[in-house]
Amino acid sequence: MNPLLIVGSVALDSVETPSGHVKNALGGAATYGSVAASLFAPVQLVGVVGADFPSEHLDFLRGRGIDLAGLQIIEGGRTFRWKGDYNDDLNSAVTHETQLGVFEHFQPELPENYRDAEFVFLANINPSLQLSTLDQIKKPKLVVCDTMNLWINLARHMVTQIFRRVDIAVLNDGEAKMLTECDSTIEAGHELLKLGPRAVIIKKGEHGALMFSEEGIFSAPSYPIECVVDPTGAGDSFAGSFTAYLAATNDLSYENLRRAVVYGGSVASVTVQDFSLQSLRELKMEEVEKRFATVQQMAQF
Amino acid sequence: MNPLLIVGSVALDSVETPSGHVKNALGGAATYGSVAASLFAPVQLVGVVGADFPSEHLDFLRGRGIDLAGLQIIEGGRTFRWKGDYNDDLNSAVTHETQLGVFEHFQPELPENYRDAEFVFLANINPSLQLSTLDQIKKPKLVVCDTMNLWINLARHMVTQIFRRVDIAVLNDGEAKMLTECDSTIEAGHELLKLGPRAVIIKKGEHGALMFSEEGIFSAPSYPIECVVDPTGAGDSFAGSFTAYLAATNDLSYENLRRAVVYGGSVASVTVQDFSLQSLRELKMEEVEKRFATVQQMAQF
Repeated sequence: MNPLLIVGSVALDSVETPSGHVKNALGGAATYGSVAASLFAPVQLVGVVGADFPSEHLDFLRGRGIDLAGLQIIEGGRTFRWKGDYNDDLNSAVTHETQLGVFEHFQPELPENYRDAEFVFLANINPSLQLSTLDQIKKPKLVVCDTMNLWINLARHMVTQIFRRVDIAVLNDGEAKMLTECDSTIEAGHELLKLGPRAVIIKKGEHGALMFSEEGIFSAPSYPIECVVDPTGAGDSFAGSFTAYLAATNDLSYENLRRAVVYGGSVASVTVQDFSLQSLRELKMEEVEKRFATVQQMAQF
Repeated sequence: MNPLLIVGSVALDSVETPSGHVKNALGGAATYGSVAASLFAPVQLVGVVGADFPSEHLDFLRGRGIDLAGLQIIEGGRTFRWKGDYNDDLNSAVTHETQLGVFEHFQPELPENYRDAEFVFLANINPSLQLSTLDQIKKPKLVVCDTMNLWINLARHMVTQIFRRVDIAVLNDGEAKMLTECDSTIEAGHELLKLGPRAVIIKKGEHGALMFSEEGIFSAPSYPIECVVDPTGAGDSFAGSFTAYLAATNDLSYENLRRAVVYGGSVASVTVQDFSLQSLRELKMEEVEKRFATVQQMAQF
């Protein structure tokens, strides 16, 4: 089966939501993306942690069939840490503290066998690192990227540059509007498409996702969740499992892209039902298929 | 074809949005609902206006095949007027002024032949007037009701009472959460269902609509609009055309309810593209069918 290469942050998160809190829990865009992806395809993880990164997390990732040859472990370095809360609004985090640690001087270096990767997910990380990762890959068949408001604010030009080089860009509605300076999600989707990607996916949390492409707009409902415990990593899980489903099926038809969006949403809906990667750890494909079928039922008319 | 009885407000609206403004333009929940409904079925309108209500509006409504035998015209009375803006947020109006006028002492009195109505839409209006209308109808086959935050605040108990007596309740997500005191739309939908209606439809503006029933949740995307000019009347147009489609087809199967939701959304998407009833006036069924087909395309996977 086609492996999926994922680059992005690996982190320790301290998060507070109306449902409770966790301290220094496993987090990071590449972590969520990889664990979600590993349900569908083997994963090659490119990132960096410090020597303080608990070995139980490394064991857990390896246990999911995630290849860690591209994960640098910096002696004497400190793992990237993020602290935030969603107390006012479950749709947007308030950042309290960001400790870059080993990310400050990180340069992704792909092991030789990773450079043949055909399926690539550039998870949220400084866009210059997304670019330098992409530069090392010889002939990718499908490149999917994510980003966040921080990079749109700090490095808009570079985010645009990445969007020009990928096949599919994934971002949330706030980011899409910010990047395009459009008030309307629909307008933003069409504007982003003009940058060149074959498809642009705008995630809308509980309201589902819209995929824009030459073929039109696809609207996928979210799996219905009564209580979101912690939204951290929902977008990363979405994009990771979306790309992994495409790698696993090796089918880039428009119809299969639509199915991949619903698989991504089904996995993301599990992620938000507990803190950190708790619910994702226990997730089986049987439950993913069940949620996919529910969403299919919800959308039919 | 089955006529549809609609009770609700007929008004003159002064509205400001980022796209412009109108003064004393034709408005009111029953007006939007009736004109939207008239695309599908003959309408019997129950409401009240003052002698100041422009006769051109009466002519326009009659020209749409809307029976005005139940529209009281009060000599010396003043038509209900609403003034508001959507400058900060196109999803929620800020009310500047409400002049009740003839609505202050309005008691709906149904013409004898209206009392046999089978299809009824109780558009937004004081819930006690919705109740007194319903009391005059002998044996309705389908009763759909709408409400608004004002009545949930002022007369929550009566809104609940109405919800217990109707077949389908339609409201927006903010109202659903307010009425049930739930944080989640999904939870709110399930709670409202417990009041007794066969289905509860929660409108989410650009994010589409969710229909809750024993059969599960149906999620309908909105027709994609790049620029919302004036959201006034979108919900009324939705519910009016939804109910009228059911009256016209005389088919209350779950599959047909789903189609009715998408027809309602297609008509509402036209309403918001101009001020007052401007775009609704010119709307032809051909365009409605086109939008229905687009939404069908958007939802398939």
